[in-house]
Amino acid sequence: MVTTTLEPKTQNRTRMAVIDCDIHNAPASPQALDKYLSARWRRYQETYGTRAQYPGTGYPRLHPSAARSDSWPPNGGRPGSDLDFMREQLLDAWDIEYGVLNPLYGAGGRVNPDYAAALAQALNRWQVAEWIDPEPRLRASIIVPYEDGELAAAEIDRCAQDPRFVQILLVARTQELLGRRKYWPMYEAAVRHDLPIGMHFGGTGGWPITGSGWPSFYIEDHVGMPQAFQAQITSWIYEGVFEQFPGLKIVLIEGGFAWLPALMWRLDRSWRLMKDEVPHLKRPPSAYIREHFWITTQPVEEPPQPVYFQQLLEQLDMNDRFLFATDYPHWDFDAPDQALPANLSPELRQAILADNARAFYRLS
Amino acid sequence: MVTTTLEPKTQNRTRMAVIDCDIHNAPASPQALDKYLSARWRRYQETYGTRAQYPGTGYPRLHPSAARSDSWPPNGGRPGSDLDFMREQLLDAWDIEYGVLNPLYGAGGRVNPDYAAALAQALNRWQVAEWIDPEPRLRASIIVPYEDGELAAAEIDRCAQDPRFVQILLVARTQELLGRRKYWPMYEAAVRHDLPIGMHFGGTGGWPITGSGWPSFYIEDHVGMPQAFQAQITSWIYEGVFEQFPGLKIVLIEGGFAWLPALMWRLDRSWRLMKDEVPHLKRPPSAYIREHFWITTQPVEEPPQPVYFQQLLEQLDMNDRFLFATDYPHWDFDAPDQALPANLSPELRQAILADNARAFYRLS
Repeated sequence: MVTTTLEPKTQNRTRMAVIDCDIHNAPASPQALDKYLSARWRRYQETYGTRAQYPGTGYPRLHPSAARSDSWPPNGGRPGSDLDFMREQLLDAWDIEYGVLNPLYGAGGRVNPDYAAALAQALNRWQVAEWIDPEPRLRASIIVPYEDGELAAAEIDRCAQDPRFVQILLVARTQELLGRRKYWPMYEAAVRHDLPIGMHFGGTGGWPITGSGWPSFYIEDHVGMPQAFQAQITSWIYEGVFEQFPGLKIVLIEGGFAWLPALMWRLDRSWRLMKDEVPHLKRPPSAYIREHFWITTQPVEEPPQPVYFQQLLEQLDMNDRFLFATDYPHWDFDAPDQALPANLSPELRQAILADNARAFYRLS
Repeated sequence: MVTTTLEPKTQNRTRMAVIDCDIHNAPASPQALDKYLSARWRRYQETYGTRAQYPGTGYPRLHPSAARSDSWPPNGGRPGSDLDFMREQLLDAWDIEYGVLNPLYGAGGRVNPDYAAALAQALNRWQVAEWIDPEPRLRASIIVPYEDGELAAAEIDRCAQDPRFVQILLVARTQELLGRRKYWPMYEAAVRHDLPIGMHFGGTGGWPITGSGWPSFYIEDHVGMPQAFQAQITSWIYEGVFEQFPGLKIVLIEGGFAWLPALMWRLDRSWRLMKDEVPHLKRPPSAYIREHFWITTQPVEEPPQPVYFQQLLEQLDMNDRFLFATDYPHWDFDAPDQALPANLSPELRQAILADNARAFYRLS
């Protein structure tokens, strides 16, 4: 549920524990990353620009930050760029036990793979020095140059030495479908370090989001993003990624989940009819989904009748896989005390707000 | 539900009335259309080929007919090409009251618009002469060169003089999203003659079906087709097509429907948040869906629990909009006495099997 208020509506002492699995920190400006880039890549940026060429989903409002209007920090930087202000607005205000950082800087979408790798490494160094070192409640996702499986694996190997990196961050729109083999070295590295892959809303893979070309409106890109998620899940399953990497775990971030039961039914039916095309699959597709996938809550689905939400949970049968997220500081922020439907049991509410994430990310 | 048997499992006298809203008749060979084409276009075909250039979704098995293995007629032609055999296997065997023909010949996807128009007209003349003239139980869909709105409108105007044309046939994968203005003259003609648009599985618009490029397997194209449907519905709504053409009616054919509640929720939520981008919309997107859309049943969704099907019907609230279809002679044929879930009431079963379609297509 979108909220535009900062103030929690509940008292601290009556509130449940909260772990926020989708926080967007950001460099105050592109220059804020300069000290984490080598001279070679600083020169490259100055000479050739960012090489972020593919059109994708530009967020609306206050582009490119897509931020809550109250989230511009007093330091004059971009929303999400000031740790003190994030403490005040998010971590302290909502008494957040842990928060997982997902900086969306587009590093992995840079079309020069070596530049993408340098930028990803700079972002990870910046996250350590300016976020998780000074703030013990924060954990970070590893930014990777995901279009090159080997380079992505190398950055995972480097970062995984630090246990405060709890996840690897991808986006839903990529140059190829994520099940294809060029990405497999990245999954091998993820499994080697037992780190989940988080796939977040967005990306710029060079293709229109629909099978009939580019839509006229941003709202079509926005409504269409679950279809990008569905295509990636389909690819991961039918390419046999989970047979190849039985330990791989994937978190679906900000793509919704009301579409997931229908996808499971269709995947299973199609597999029964055409399993000879994908003989590397050993089980029904829905079995891979229930074993390998987790889901963040934001944006919480809002069916017109509360009972439909209950039906959705029943059909999914994945209550222990939901991870709460606010999406701070983005414009469609989900407040911990308002986002979840009122008719959830206290046990399920607490599991979603914190317990599932605490176990999944091994937060003490 | 897929069945590979021809024989009805129920006695004729105990069976309910059946109207089949998706039958695929086909020319026995490309030459079978020659007498309906002018010399100019026969020469064109011989010289330049079919000009069907874009890769799309090639059906599996017995390509290009994708037919039931028992449906090859004794005349040696393609499945669906022999009226007598169709009478025997489908119309008589299942005591079909009316059947709606949807020949999938790809005419509208030919990239030379004048050739597409000539081929569409030839198919329509062939349907009249060889199908609906000799068989009073059959009705036909108008084949149109849909990538050119004006040419499509002209063919609609020509065919609509014959009331046995009950629908205009499009496919789900097109060169542009179907809400865009180049298609509007076609919708204007549809409304002028009060003819619904049927959008069928398939097509070849030149774009990959996913937002991340071409999938490796046919099964991914097959699973992805509902996403093509979702993108087209989104486009029709957000482009304001239903405000422009309040009388427009659309039938979703062979794309499934379990994904539709989730799409309605997301469309409505996104519209509440971003309605300023599409100020031409006057109502929530789900209101346009419930007013302007109908759905054929084949392939009937197969959730793992029957109660989930009931939940789906409840969430959709469109019971009077379901139209039964067998998809004869395609490989995933739905048998009238087996396809629908057992726990439907007799009234709803009869409405879906025949009554809804009889009223919708104005069959006497």
